[in-house]
Amino acid sequence: MRALLWDNELHLAEIPVPELLHGEALIRPLLAGICATDVHITQGYRGFHGVLGHECVGVVAECEDASWIGRRVVGDVNAACLHCPTCLASDTAHCPERTTLGINRRHGTMADYFTLPIVNLLLVPDGMSDEQAIFAEPLAAALEIVERCHIRPTERVALVGDGKLGLLVAQTLRLIGCELLVIGRHPERWDLLREQGVDTAHAAQLEPSRWDVVIDCTGSADGLALARRLVRPRGRLVLKSTFHGVSPLDLSQMVVDEVTLIGSRCGPFAPALRLLERGLIETAPLIHARYRLDDALAAFRAVAGHLKVLLAP
Amino acid sequence: MRALLWDNELHLAEIPVPELLHGEALIRPLLAGICATDVHITQGYRGFHGVLGHECVGVVAECEDASWIGRRVVGDVNAACLHCPTCLASDTAHCPERTTLGINRRHGTMADYFTLPIVNLLLVPDGMSDEQAIFAEPLAAALEIVERCHIRPTERVALVGDGKLGLLVAQTLRLIGCELLVIGRHPERWDLLREQGVDTAHAAQLEPSRWDVVIDCTGSADGLALARRLVRPRGRLVLKSTFHGVSPLDLSQMVVDEVTLIGSRCGPFAPALRLLERGLIETAPLIHARYRLDDALAAFRAVAGHLKVLLAP
Repeated sequence: MRALLWDNELHLAEIPVPELLHGEALIRPLLAGICATDVHITQGYRGFHGVLGHECVGVVAECEDASWIGRRVVGDVNAACLHCPTCLASDTAHCPERTTLGINRRHGTMADYFTLPIVNLLLVPDGMSDEQAIFAEPLAAALEIVERCHIRPTERVALVGDGKLGLLVAQTLRLIGCELLVIGRHPERWDLLREQGVDTAHAAQLEPSRWDVVIDCTGSADGLALARRLVRPRGRLVLKSTFHGVSPLDLSQMVVDEVTLIGSRCGPFAPALRLLERGLIETAPLIHARYRLDDALAAFRAVAGHLKVLLAP
Repeated sequence: MRALLWDNELHLAEIPVPELLHGEALIRPLLAGICATDVHITQGYRGFHGVLGHECVGVVAECEDASWIGRRVVGDVNAACLHCPTCLASDTAHCPERTTLGINRRHGTMADYFTLPIVNLLLVPDGMSDEQAIFAEPLAAALEIVERCHIRPTERVALVGDGKLGLLVAQTLRLIGCELLVIGRHPERWDLLREQGVDTAHAAQLEPSRWDVVIDCTGSADGLALARRLVRPRGRLVLKSTFHGVSPLDLSQMVVDEVTLIGSRCGPFAPALRLLERGLIETAPLIHARYRLDDALAAFRAVAGHLKVLLAP
């Protein structure tokens, strides 16, 4: 089968169809999405070598439980052992033995087939398009913020970053009813936010130490430093991106200001599907381009500075 | 001016226009809403005597700050002293000296005029109809649940009660992305919920001790007892209604089950207006009927078993 491989070089290769293990499903992608993490991997992040990709909507091609075959699915990217103490405490996302689709010891979705444990799969509702369902994974990651952090309707929330993830996070935060300001560098993307009742601003216009909750979705040291300046004493600073290089945080000042730092990574798929099904998240404006898997190298070149790039078989 | 008075008898009366105190505004109602609390007051709740009503959208008629005159407003119902320790801790809603519109030592909104402190007023956005804005107060009360209680997107939430308040609370909870079941006795109201992706059920069909969070919006002892049966060990039970008579809760069993009980009353207006302005809350299906103030007695008779009844001048 075809696969987009990263082994210190990004290239399309012919590799064998993955072996189907007990408890797993073989899935044929309908759409895969390129995430900033995929790009970071090609810059050395986590030292992963293998097939790239963790965002996917696909059809189950083979499975020991025949009721799944032919069903359209999305899948949680973390494959846990299910019997260690972490898993038994219902925290499979942090299983120390886990593999992660296209990120850690498990081939990813940018291929003709990939595998995931059956327990990771969720059916895509019939009325939902592939172009909506492909956002289940990043939307789940956006929802992990409110899973971890109680953000109240009366609070002032600033979101730094108007990239792919930032625009999804903004759409989940506006549902809380809180005051919400998105700070970014791409005014051409702000119409969507303004139509949704979300305020926007350039960084230069901002008063520091004013926001109850500040979320960094930039993945850059500059973005994190700005987010830190904006949070009020006793406020909460949520780190959403996984790639920052050397941290610009002055931890001593964090203590003085009693700021709470909250890390937030992969999130829950089921609520993401529910919000998509309830029509509460706009996805169409987030899609920049669509490529064929055969043109995956061109697709990766098209990602920089743009919104979501999709790969179809 | 005309006013709907409760003094152990409900009747329309001619009373003087309220005196305008320093720091207050005189408001001419465009619409007032009848709430279950108003009905409870006519059954003896809180021993209040005076002009009924705390839900209102109106126009400022007189005010020492002339910039308010002619502006369309809604107003927080609790008028606090602003200098006691509770107020200085930013908790004006619990000021022990507070008066409450149409509920406690302050004449209410079902009259030709009423007064509120200027600090309580919020401008109604231009694009919002009076019929939307009248829901700011009950929607604020609905939002107080998520202000007080962190409900996560992955949690299972049951809401007991499909009355006026229950339908508003359901609309705020569905925005979290959580699994949401509304339990009620009015299947004719469930189309709205189902269109919004919310499940509905009759009480008889339910498995007990299963839900992470259960919210009682019934205002009845039966409803509270059902809500208590549904909550799981270590779950949270939110009391939304203020009128239950004798509590059916077995507090000893609450300790054994380690259930957290959370009271929740009036809520924040600003996020309620934001959610209405963002188009995230449907209000039109919640309106049952509209009466003139002169027909207020007929309006009160029309409330029982129905959704929102409005009063226009």
